[in-house]
Amino acid sequence: MISEFRLARRVQFHETDAAGLVHFSVFFRYMEEAEHGLWRAAGLSIAPRDARIGFPRVATSFEFLKPLRFEDEFEVTIRITRKSVKSLSYRATIVKDGDVAAHGVLTVACVTKEPGQPLRGTPIPANIADRFSVAPGKDG
Amino acid sequence: MISEFRLARRVQFHETDAAGLVHFSVFFRYMEEAEHGLWRAAGLSIAPRDARIGFPRVATSFEFLKPLRFEDEFEVTIRITRKSVKSLSYRATIVKDGDVAAHGVLTVACVTKEPGQPLRGTPIPANIADRFSVAPGKDG
Amino acid sequence: MISEFRLARRVQFHETDAAGLVHFSVFFRYMEEAEHGLWRAAGLSIAPRDARIGFPRVATSFEFLKPLRFEDEFEVTIRITRKSVKSLSYRATIVKDGDVAAHGVLTVACVTKEPGQPLRGTPIPANIADRFSVAPGKDG
Amino acid sequence: MISEFRLARRVQFHETDAAGLVHFSVFFRYMEEAEHGLWRAAGLSIAPRDARIGFPRVATSFEFLKPLRFEDEFEVTIRITRKSVKSLSYRATIVKDGDVAAHGVLTVACVTKEPGQPLRGTPIPANIADRFSVAPGKDG
Repeated sequence: MISEFRLARRVQFHETDAAGLVHFSVFFRYMEEAEHGLWRAAGLSIAPRDARIGFPRVATSFEFLKPLRFEDEFEVTIRITRKSVKSLSYRATIVKDGDVAAHGVLTVACVTKEPGQPLRGTPIPANIADRFSVAPGKDG
Repeated sequence: MISEFRLARRVQFHETDAAGLVHFSVFFRYMEEAEHGLWRAAGLSIAPRDARIGFPRVATSFEFLKPLRFEDEFEVTIRITRKSVKSLSYRATIVKDGDVAAHGVLTVACVTKEPGQPLRGTPIPANIADRFSVAPGKDG
Repeated sequence: MISEFRLARRVQFHETDAAGLVHFSVFFRYMEEAEHGLWRAAGLSIAPRDARIGFPRVATSFEFLKPLRFEDEFEVTIRITRKSVKSLSYRATIVKDGDVAAHGVLTVACVTKEPGQPLRGTPIPANIADRFSVAPGKDG
Repeated sequence: MISEFRLARRVQFHETDAAGLVHFSVFFRYMEEAEHGLWRAAGLSIAPRDARIGFPRVATSFEFLKPLRFEDEFEVTIRITRKSVKSLSYRATIVKDGDVAAHGVLTVACVTKEPGQPLRGTPIPANIADRFSVAPGKDG
């Protein structure tokens, strides 16, 4: 079982904006890249080709403490904070040079994907749920 | 004084992902596009060229209720929910075909931008603050 | 039959980069937004949900003459320059304040999309091909 | 002197589109990521903070042979194909599982960046130009 993953990353130019900083929407992409790394570390893909289930995002947030700039190197640490029958929640921390740049939170739900049908919640299959556990510690 | 703005928008192909839905990070861009429309409706630009102040994002969140797909038409309504000396908060609602697709929240702070210096909080200049007011209603 | 479409657009903040300009990759998105507008003007969607054919991009280029900046208003004019059994070619011109900012070229091919199969070229269906014609003029 | 750089990369979910493929505009970002890696390998940054010169893109193209999908691993090899007083040209090849997925070309020019002034071509400074050489071989 896995509960945490760390991604090392460098800021790319196309991720910056005219303020000279990483655009705030990109932090959500960093968090998701770490989430998918966590799944791969568990031997899984969150979106295999022609999958019948998917994991759309239900809620997410970020708090920004320090900006990131072009070519900055940083780490995203993502931890599972909650695991229920149909959903998973994560907390991510982005650290640059020992300082926390941002904190993020993400909840995803398991849904069935039928052509032409609306997405519908469904239990996370056991072969997926069994690979993940909630990270220890007060904030997951 | 202005407190609310409505943006009509259509989903572009590059905003979708392999799940066939608008990528969740893009909702933050929709909210920001509406924010900048609100500023223009107030006769302002949030980022004039060579400005000495800026408005970085401090915190933001989204709750996703229904997905958006390629070519969907939708509206983003953004309202000012809080105005303090150094920051503004907004709430955005994304509606498609009469249904709420997502709710977002955004707080931005006013900072000074000096070459080579860290960003530092500063009061919102009066010529900007005077144009905006908090929207009426229980949730802004 | 339709051969040309004009899209009016404003630069969004998330499209700029730390050089203060629209990132060059975004011009390809502008061209594609105009292409999809051309298809809608012809009464078509280039990517209906659960479609069995698709139109992947085969080749594309851009030449950049003048930069675009945050909140610049511009127009993208796209014209069909070539129509063959299995492909379409377009030429796009981006104009700001009467000056050409960029020229782009795009060729797309019609393919079948079978689950788990590689994309394979196929003739453009008549109900699509019949809606489009090559634009008059020396450069399409 | 350096003339070539190889970047190993994995497709991220936010880089895909509703066709299930990497969006074509993203290939230009892959090429640019490799370009900036080439500069770093030469001990340089293409866009240091508060720089007085910059390297805007003048022309670029891509030819797409095979699609990339979520989590595909691939390599971008970028080579300098031309070096003139005021510009550099590159050629990039994207390879997945031994097959060429795409070929790209990029030309960038050196310009001065003065606040409020248009960009103006200028010779590449010697401390930059001296680090780069044209790659051997018939196509650079």
